[in-house]
Amino acid sequence: MKTIGYAAHSSDAHMVPYHFERRALRSNDVAIEILYSGICHSDLHTVNGDWGPQSYPLVPGHEIIGRVLEVGADVKHYKVGDSVAVGCMVDSCKQCRQCDNHEEQYCENGMTPTYGAPDRISGDITQGGYSKHIVVREEFVLSVPETLDMSRAAPILCAGITTYSPLRTWNVTKGTRVGVVGLGGLGHMGVKIAAAMGAEVTVISRSNAKEKEAKSSGATSLLVSTDKEAMKKAASSFDLILDTVPVKHNVDAYTRLLDVDGTLVIVGQIGPLEEPMTIPLVTGRRRIAGSLIGGIKETQEVLDFCAEHDIHPECKIINANEINEAFKHLAKGDVAHRFVIDMASMSE
Amino acid sequence: MKTIGYAAHSSDAHMVPYHFERRALRSNDVAIEILYSGICHSDLHTVNGDWGPQSYPLVPGHEIIGRVLEVGADVKHYKVGDSVAVGCMVDSCKQCRQCDNHEEQYCENGMTPTYGAPDRISGDITQGGYSKHIVVREEFVLSVPETLDMSRAAPILCAGITTYSPLRTWNVTKGTRVGVVGLGGLGHMGVKIAAAMGAEVTVISRSNAKEKEAKSSGATSLLVSTDKEAMKKAASSFDLILDTVPVKHNVDAYTRLLDVDGTLVIVGQIGPLEEPMTIPLVTGRRRIAGSLIGGIKETQEVLDFCAEHDIHPECKIINANEINEAFKHLAKGDVAHRFVIDMASMSE
Repeated sequence: MKTIGYAAHSSDAHMVPYHFERRALRSNDVAIEILYSGICHSDLHTVNGDWGPQSYPLVPGHEIIGRVLEVGADVKHYKVGDSVAVGCMVDSCKQCRQCDNHEEQYCENGMTPTYGAPDRISGDITQGGYSKHIVVREEFVLSVPETLDMSRAAPILCAGITTYSPLRTWNVTKGTRVGVVGLGGLGHMGVKIAAAMGAEVTVISRSNAKEKEAKSSGATSLLVSTDKEAMKKAASSFDLILDTVPVKHNVDAYTRLLDVDGTLVIVGQIGPLEEPMTIPLVTGRRRIAGSLIGGIKETQEVLDFCAEHDIHPECKIINANEINEAFKHLAKGDVAHRFVIDMASMSE
Repeated sequence: MKTIGYAAHSSDAHMVPYHFERRALRSNDVAIEILYSGICHSDLHTVNGDWGPQSYPLVPGHEIIGRVLEVGADVKHYKVGDSVAVGCMVDSCKQCRQCDNHEEQYCENGMTPTYGAPDRISGDITQGGYSKHIVVREEFVLSVPETLDMSRAAPILCAGITTYSPLRTWNVTKGTRVGVVGLGGLGHMGVKIAAAMGAEVTVISRSNAKEKEAKSSGATSLLVSTDKEAMKKAASSFDLILDTVPVKHNVDAYTRLLDVDGTLVIVGQIGPLEEPMTIPLVTGRRRIAGSLIGGIKETQEVLDFCAEHDIHPECKIINANEINEAFKHLAKGDVAHRFVIDMASMSE
């Protein structure tokens, strides 16, 4: 299938229109016309080669919303016209303990990311959602509930699941004291989802500039991390903190905010943390953990959860020719919404 | 009550004999004749001022075995002649959530360490176990089971509980894959206790020099952390790792050894860790935690557990005048036994 997307041709290049082929449908494949594609900070990191060398041209994008165009002979759960979604993975071994446990993101043989990795069968490099079409194995296609606004749902596939999964893993429920460090793409979804779970949510931010925004997302308060008195007063008062900071940073001020047995979950930074002190960990049996997106079953769950609770990410719809501009904003950091490409704007 | 002990008179001084007073018995106090007192690496750190300035003269020691000499009017559970023990705490507020939860070590108002901290009532600085006598609030006195060899039980009060508590917290049971980094005072107790719980225990060490010792303590194998091939092969193969390394170090090689949802528990180092990479945490939902000794109820449990399973720490009994020599060995590191002072050797 011929399609068009936006690709980077090298690590220092702009995104440009790119004509390429999607694979012919396998019997268990679903062909999708992409309607909306979210722009994740990790797209920028990947095309820039920040996380290792890439194979170019590379079409990023792993927050995909579209409609089924065609299905393979053995596809059972989707039919032409269905509203569907694709997230950060398009395949895994489906045979290991983690896959059996619906945790394909931790597949022991390595899951296949939506872009930039060899397809398990052909070996061709996968290409992502900044394109008009995609062909994906049925098991990795999600269903978009009717009540979700398709134009604003894409970021659920990465920002949504990345925050939903640790909130579920650490059993967040009514009254759980949840902190969210940072109110960017991940943070604002974390706040909305945790609040919908009944948690008491506090945004932890360097200033109170985002207080209004934090509260309108469902936070009950904002804690200013540069206010030493306030931070001291808030010691030992959180059960779980989602740390969405996407750069190297010091976590000591945050671990001290945790109650005994509390956990700080890193979901933003891929790389080193500054030297952490063990004292807050040892003297309160506190924990620092990481979490990676979520499994396919859980990704369906977060789509359904967002539909049920009328949660939509803060989106700014852009045209395809605005991708480079959006990347510049992301590189500057601290964008409190997600850019979403309207694929109707992409000329064939 | 007059007594004699060994005290440091400044942070750079040797330990010397020291005559001092123990408080008069309060109604809920137990007076104990100390028979054996273990030497913990933290005694050395504390008297040296490594963990902050101290009040001198300072008598360290928080692994105490003795016999009841006298009891206060309201003491219910002990009588003269009972075999008893005292560990790292001698008091706490007994009113907060943590105390209510039998986790006095995490007392919200701060537990009172056995030495070097103000007594909650008089404000006098507590003095530890390197002495002939001690007076302790009943609730912080433990009972020594009959089948434990008193001369070898002292290290259970610190090294034992410090490893037992995280093994219980993280639900170690038959078949749990436990790694123990370092085979010093803490490590060898961790191995013995985890093995008695039915775990499959691997000692993780820089060389295979301690293989025989590891296996005689109950480990099924020894993993050489400098052997890159062996470490790679062991990736994702542990549920829990006790990290007993008492100095600043890098944990990345160990976190990679954890299976999904596995935890590395820091029990040795009080201070900074080297910059940890978040990648092993994020890509396996792995955790780094800390743990501090255990509560009083749990300390009684580990004494009973060691009696039931015939677990005795590896001890080297020394005379009181050999304390400075023992400190020198500890400072060099890597002593695979615990020095225990025979108090009969201390002249009045």
